[in-house]
Amino acid sequence: MALQFLFQFLSLLLLFTTICISATYPGSSTRFDTMRRRMTSKSNSHLPPEFVTYYYTQTLDHFNYKPESYATFQQKYIKNFKYWGGASTSSPIIVYIGEEAPLTFGVHGKGFIVDLASRFKAMLLYIEHRYYGDSMPFGSFDEAFRDANTLGFLSSTQALADCAQLITDVKRNLSAENCPVIAIGGSYGGMLASWLRLKYPHIATGALASSAPILYFDDLTPQNGYHVVVTNDFRDVSESCYNTIKQSWSEIDRVAGQTNGLTTLSNIFQTCSPLNSSKELKDHLGMIYVISAQNDNPPYNPVSKVCGAIDGAPKGTDILGKVAAGLNASLLRGGPEAQCNHIIDFTPKNTSGWTWQTCTEMVMPIGHGENDTMFQGSPFDLNNYTKSCQALFGVTPKPHWITTEFGGHDIKSVLGNFSSNIIFSNGLRDPYSVGGVLEDISDSVVAVYTKDGAHGLDLLDATPSDPEWLLAERQKEIKIIELWIAEHNARLIKTGNRIGF
Amino acid sequence: MALQFLFQFLSLLLLFTTICISATYPGSSTRFDTMRRRMTSKSNSHLPPEFVTYYYTQTLDHFNYKPESYATFQQKYIKNFKYWGGASTSSPIIVYIGEEAPLTFGVHGKGFIVDLASRFKAMLLYIEHRYYGDSMPFGSFDEAFRDANTLGFLSSTQALADCAQLITDVKRNLSAENCPVIAIGGSYGGMLASWLRLKYPHIATGALASSAPILYFDDLTPQNGYHVVVTNDFRDVSESCYNTIKQSWSEIDRVAGQTNGLTTLSNIFQTCSPLNSSKELKDHLGMIYVISAQNDNPPYNPVSKVCGAIDGAPKGTDILGKVAAGLNASLLRGGPEAQCNHIIDFTPKNTSGWTWQTCTEMVMPIGHGENDTMFQGSPFDLNNYTKSCQALFGVTPKPHWITTEFGGHDIKSVLGNFSSNIIFSNGLRDPYSVGGVLEDISDSVVAVYTKDGAHGLDLLDATPSDPEWLLAERQKEIKIIELWIAEHNARLIKTGNRIGF
Repeated sequence: MALQFLFQFLSLLLLFTTICISATYPGSSTRFDTMRRRMTSKSNSHLPPEFVTYYYTQTLDHFNYKPESYATFQQKYIKNFKYWGGASTSSPIIVYIGEEAPLTFGVHGKGFIVDLASRFKAMLLYIEHRYYGDSMPFGSFDEAFRDANTLGFLSSTQALADCAQLITDVKRNLSAENCPVIAIGGSYGGMLASWLRLKYPHIATGALASSAPILYFDDLTPQNGYHVVVTNDFRDVSESCYNTIKQSWSEIDRVAGQTNGLTTLSNIFQTCSPLNSSKELKDHLGMIYVISAQNDNPPYNPVSKVCGAIDGAPKGTDILGKVAAGLNASLLRGGPEAQCNHIIDFTPKNTSGWTWQTCTEMVMPIGHGENDTMFQGSPFDLNNYTKSCQALFGVTPKPHWITTEFGGHDIKSVLGNFSSNIIFSNGLRDPYSVGGVLEDISDSVVAVYTKDGAHGLDLLDATPSDPEWLLAERQKEIKIIELWIAEHNARLIKTGNRIGF
Repeated sequence: MALQFLFQFLSLLLLFTTICISATYPGSSTRFDTMRRRMTSKSNSHLPPEFVTYYYTQTLDHFNYKPESYATFQQKYIKNFKYWGGASTSSPIIVYIGEEAPLTFGVHGKGFIVDLASRFKAMLLYIEHRYYGDSMPFGSFDEAFRDANTLGFLSSTQALADCAQLITDVKRNLSAENCPVIAIGGSYGGMLASWLRLKYPHIATGALASSAPILYFDDLTPQNGYHVVVTNDFRDVSESCYNTIKQSWSEIDRVAGQTNGLTTLSNIFQTCSPLNSSKELKDHLGMIYVISAQNDNPPYNPVSKVCGAIDGAPKGTDILGKVAAGLNASLLRGGPEAQCNHIIDFTPKNTSGWTWQTCTEMVMPIGHGENDTMFQGSPFDLNNYTKSCQALFGVTPKPHWITTEFGGHDIKSVLGNFSSNIIFSNGLRDPYSVGGVLEDISDSVVAVYTKDGAHGLDLLDATPSDPEWLLAERQKEIKIIELWIAEHNARLIKTGNRIGF
């Protein structure tokens, strides 16, 4: 249970940091990337024995035919046959679409996927995303991340084609061409799952896209939507907590402006190293609130934890003391045994795959004004964002590419009579849910959401303390997927052989 | 009328040679490529004034982010506003998806597209395919075709993304985001049109894919299907013609084996230069039959012309004399004023864009056995095909890529509850129709075909002599497209604003 908690926590952290922080500030999820890299290894020792690791010889570039594009790399994937009914019964294949993390993060803690396999007699296939974990082109992390020439092949479209090719091959080798494929992913992996269904309907029979903000691109969603939800999450829990946080920023600035102000702040906030600027502290605190909101799932409910500490500070505690108490109670403190607060370094680094992705195509314009949230103003500034990416990687972001390639505008009209079999699931406490699909697009492209719950909750391990609404959400998803599988098999019987018609 | 005929003829020729010959023998459509290149020029003088040419600054590689991918090239496109009702009335935009030819071939002779614009008050947008006509990356044909490093960016997926980006930009500049887009193309351009709808439903509201053999890949269609249809076309017209052709091959071989046999054959077939081998002659004759079948459209009906000459040879004419009479009456003779027959050089050349495409992804496994057609046996041999491509371009074909990227297996089951608004039109005398979609996939992904008629007929200029069945086919297509436009506009009204939902 302790291990499970650890993985769930790390997994949550990943889901958060990699997608969120770097959206606001490209290249800032470095620390987690480092942590992730430390956890990368060819060893499979932490996986239960039914999860067997393989490597697929994957094409470097699927979309052009330069000689270098024919180069290959070893892409990690995991198969689990424990529950599979076999090809002869057209039993399903559930494919976990890896996100910006080592593949083990897709296995550990995401128990719902295994539960689905057990229920539907499905085979499990986990696919690691290129440039993450062990799936490094050019033979090593250092070579893959050398410069824009080697990083250039890290893109969502290449990752989708990787999945298409790998799934096709795995099915062919199992003579499982008739088996329905259900693609599942969370956050960025959820986007990929839905896009796999949209772009490769012949590969994915259906997709469960958990907490996938496919509409947080271009001009589709108000830029401040993310931080407005964070703010509402805190305000919902406690108006006084919200007020304390809102007032804290100018108070930090005021103290920082005093003689030895940074030392004072370092002491108040128990930083492990002396602060270099008030911005450093404010960015770290901002991160705390954001991560708490994004992961405001039971049973941890981090927003309540933070606000409980802020509101519960001894009578007479001043604003900064309260906010420091919130920090100490937060997910990033590192537990009760931690002696001090490691302040996260937001300097963008060119060793983060996700930062590369946000600097090329995954441009999520997240920002907020002066008075629309509990945060100090920090509007999205494409010019600065672009400059930062150019300095970091020598690459220029393409803010319109995702909507050109995958759509988003008019989504209900466009997909209303096109596409089928996608679940977009969201917890409305997740700030990313504002960029998610929260309304049914058609009978079978549906939005499933819960008022409570945040980022990626439905995919996590079931626990005895799961609330009723979470059980109901998962049950609803099961029913829908069950229908897809039944319809797939009915069509198979009706259409007979699979060549051509 | 004479000019119109010329363009229709050249256009037909292109549709045929570029797609057909090179499928059987990669790299063999050189002569037509040369012809095409001669006709390439920035001059717009032959177009009516309402067709205005522009150049779009297009991205070299849409799917990776290497520095070189950000390079751009000038992509030719043509706009025609003559019939457009304007953005305010959500009047449609009809997009002609350029195939493996200069863009003028899309304008001249394809009158049905203009008729559609006139009927639906549509704007016309013609998009030239990269690496054809004037749309050369790297500044010139010679640079673009230098080697696999520069040719590498010529692929169907890049071409589709070109269309997506260009259409999006043109619409934005006209504030025409709400206008429905109907993509139309023929042959390879028809494949692209249907794939544009499948992959970019937010860009193309519907697609008319004329004579698009999207199922002539991988193991989807019997390899000999193409030549079986050619054979049936001839046999339908005349059993004796069919028999003469069938017997002619061994007769050619017999004469070629005699002393001065090649000289004898050169004389019989009035070749402009002496034959170097009997294969040269047989390939040329094979081409005549194939091109005649593929273009067996009224009012020319080339199969009847060739068979008429074969059967109508003076009494006592031997087999070779009859076949030579057929050759002299064929489309490739060059008209009555031609003094001799130019024998087409089938040696693959690395100056053909289409040959590059067939050597990379557009691998159509067309071949036939010894006794299943009127031709001598010529099975599809992937090994030889691959060797030829490696020798020519240093590139290895990927015979499974098209079905991985675009599907094809189980198409009725896969697209039965996915996708909408595609017409696959075919004339069953077209040998490529065996690789086309000839059965409705759903209510709105439909097959429209005619027993008579061959490759790309529906798109051609209407003429007073058009038969009833052709008028009916076009009428049917008009009705379907009309419905798409009406439904699009109804959805617009229903869903209201276009941002997000």
